[in-house]
Amino acid sequence: MTAEKKVVLLSGMQPSGALHIGNYEGALRNWVDLQNSGKYKMFNCIVDWHALTSSSDETELLVPRIYEMAADFIAAGLDPEQTAIFVQSQVKEHAELHLLLSMIIPIPWLERVPSYKEKRETLGLDNYGFLGYPILQTADIIIYRARVVPVGKDQLAHLEIAREIVRRFHYLYGEVFPEPEALVTKHAVLPGTDGRKMSKTYGNYIALGDGPDIICEKVKNMFTDPEKIHKTDKGHPDRCPVYIYRTIYDADLPVDLKDKCASGDASVGCVACKKALMQAIVDYFADFRAKRSELLADKAQLDAILEDGAKRARERAAETMILVRKAMNMYGS
Amino acid sequence: MTAEKKVVLLSGMQPSGALHIGNYEGALRNWVDLQNSGKYKMFNCIVDWHALTSSSDETELLVPRIYEMAADFIAAGLDPEQTAIFVQSQVKEHAELHLLLSMIIPIPWLERVPSYKEKRETLGLDNYGFLGYPILQTADIIIYRARVVPVGKDQLAHLEIAREIVRRFHYLYGEVFPEPEALVTKHAVLPGTDGRKMSKTYGNYIALGDGPDIICEKVKNMFTDPEKIHKTDKGHPDRCPVYIYRTIYDADLPVDLKDKCASGDASVGCVACKKALMQAIVDYFADFRAKRSELLADKAQLDAILEDGAKRARERAAETMILVRKAMNMYGS
Repeated sequence: MTAEKKVVLLSGMQPSGALHIGNYEGALRNWVDLQNSGKYKMFNCIVDWHALTSSSDETELLVPRIYEMAADFIAAGLDPEQTAIFVQSQVKEHAELHLLLSMIIPIPWLERVPSYKEKRETLGLDNYGFLGYPILQTADIIIYRARVVPVGKDQLAHLEIAREIVRRFHYLYGEVFPEPEALVTKHAVLPGTDGRKMSKTYGNYIALGDGPDIICEKVKNMFTDPEKIHKTDKGHPDRCPVYIYRTIYDADLPVDLKDKCASGDASVGCVACKKALMQAIVDYFADFRAKRSELLADKAQLDAILEDGAKRARERAAETMILVRKAMNMYGS
Repeated sequence: MTAEKKVVLLSGMQPSGALHIGNYEGALRNWVDLQNSGKYKMFNCIVDWHALTSSSDETELLVPRIYEMAADFIAAGLDPEQTAIFVQSQVKEHAELHLLLSMIIPIPWLERVPSYKEKRETLGLDNYGFLGYPILQTADIIIYRARVVPVGKDQLAHLEIAREIVRRFHYLYGEVFPEPEALVTKHAVLPGTDGRKMSKTYGNYIALGDGPDIICEKVKNMFTDPEKIHKTDKGHPDRCPVYIYRTIYDADLPVDLKDKCASGDASVGCVACKKALMQAIVDYFADFRAKRSELLADKAQLDAILEDGAKRARERAAETMILVRKAMNMYGS
C-alpha cells in the first residue's frame, strides 16, 4: 500500500502526567495496533495548548510531562518513523486554523457540548479557551485532513461537533476537508485498582512507568471481590480488578481459575492471585520500562524525534492552510 | 532620536471598505502626524481577521478592501519606510498569542465589554471569535510590545481590557509587556453629510477616493442649517456640516463668514458656501486621489509594500513570542 493510499489518522492526548495502564488499554494500545496494521498515515499529537485550558497556572509541569508522554508513546510501540509524534504548539497552523474557525462557530454550539457544562461546574473553569476547546480540537484533526480519529465512546460528542464545524465551513467556503470519522476503540475500559474508573484524580492507577516495587505495592492494596472474605467464599471474578488485570497481563493465567474462584475452591485465593498479578505486570512492562528509561535519559534524542514529527506535521498542515486560505479568499492566497 | 529610543506604537483598522473623510479626521490624519513627529516606531495593521467576526460570509470583499485600505493609508501620508504597514493574517504570531491569552481570560471579562452586548443585539453576532475580539485586539497590540495605541474615545474600553489582560498575564507568568496606553486622538469627530455621525451604514460620507463629480454631488445634497431657509435667516455655522467641513478643507475660508452667516447677512448664502466647499474638497484631496489611483493601478507594488511591512512586523512579533513562550514555560522555549 503506497503512502498516498493510506488513510490519514489523527490521534492526540493531553500531557497531563505519566500515562497509566488505563490510558494504555483505552487508547495507546489501539494506536499501536492501528499503526502496525499499515493502513494509516499516522499523526500523533501531544496537545499542550489544550492542557492550558485547565492548567494555565502550573505550566512548569508542561515540559516534563511532554517528555514523559513522548517516552510513554514510543516505549509502548509508536514508531516515530511510521507515526509523526509531535507537540501541538510546535505547529502554529493549529492556532491559525482555530482562529479562522472561531469566526464561523456560534457560541451555543460550544455551550451545549456535554463536557463543557460538566467541567465548568466541577472544575470551575470559565476561561475563553476552555469554551473554545472543541474548535481547537477540530482544528487539530482537520488541519491534517484526517479521515479517522481513534476515540473512546466518551469522545464521540466532540467528534460530532468537529463534523458539524466541517459542514459549516464547507457550506460557507466550499469543500476542503474530509468529515472525520470516529474509530471507536475496541478495548474495554480498565477499572482502577479500587474498582472505580481509573483516574489520576482518584489515585487508583498503575502508571506505565511504575517500577516493580511500586507495582507490587499497588497490586497488594488492590480491591478484590468484597463478598469473598474467606478462600471458600464464592468469588465474582468478572468484577474483580485483580482477575480482570490478569486476563490482560498474565499469559500463564490458568484456564480453570475463573471457575475455581467463582465456586469458592480453596485451592485458589486472593493473596496468591495478587502475587501472580504483580509478577505478570512487572514482566509485561519490563521492556517498556527499560525503553522508557533509556528515552528519558536522552532528552536530546526525544527533542530530535519530536522535531522530526513536527516537521512532517507542519508540511501537511501548511498544505491544508493553503487550501483553507484560498477557500476563504484570504489576502495572499 | 535613535530607533531604539522610539516609542513603539500600534495602530490598526478593519478593512471594511474605502476610507471616508471621517476616518481620515478621526484616525488617519492623526497617525500621519504621529509618524511625522519622529517619536514613534510605527506598526500599522490592517486587521483582516477581525473583519471576519462580522463578515465571514462575504470574504470575497476582503482582498479588494485590503488593497484600497493600503492605498488610502499611503496616499494619506503613511510612509512605508517609516511605518510598517501590513496585513494581520500575514503575521501568524497574532493567532498564537491570541490562543495563549484565551486560556487565561475569564469569559465574564469579555461579556461585559460594552460593544459586545450592543453589537450582539444590533448585528445579531454570536460567533465565538466575536466574543474573543478583545483578546485578539490585545494580541495585536502587545505582540509588538507597543507602549501606545492611538484610539478614539469609543475605543478606550477595549484598551482598558487589553491592560487588564496584560496584568493577568504578568501575574501568572511574570513581566513581558508594557501596559499599553491610549493616545486619545485630538481631532474632532466629523459629522456626516446629513449632520449625523458619519458612517458607511448611513451612506452619509465622502470617501477619500471619491472623484470630483461624486464630491460635488454629495456636497450639493448636504444638509445645512434647517433654520436658515432664506439668505437673511440667521444661521448656526457651528452645527452646519458645510461650514464645519470648510473650516477644515478651505484654506481660503473668509474670516468673517461665520459672523455673516450667523447674523443673516444677505451677502453670503448656502448655495455659494457649498460651491466653495466642493472646490475646496476637490482641491484638498487632489494629490491624494492621484497617488491613490497610482497605487491601486500597481498591485504588485502594494503587495511588495505589504510584504515588507509584514516582514518587519514578523521580526518584532517573533521576538515577543520567544519571551512569551519562555515566560509560560512552553516546550522548546
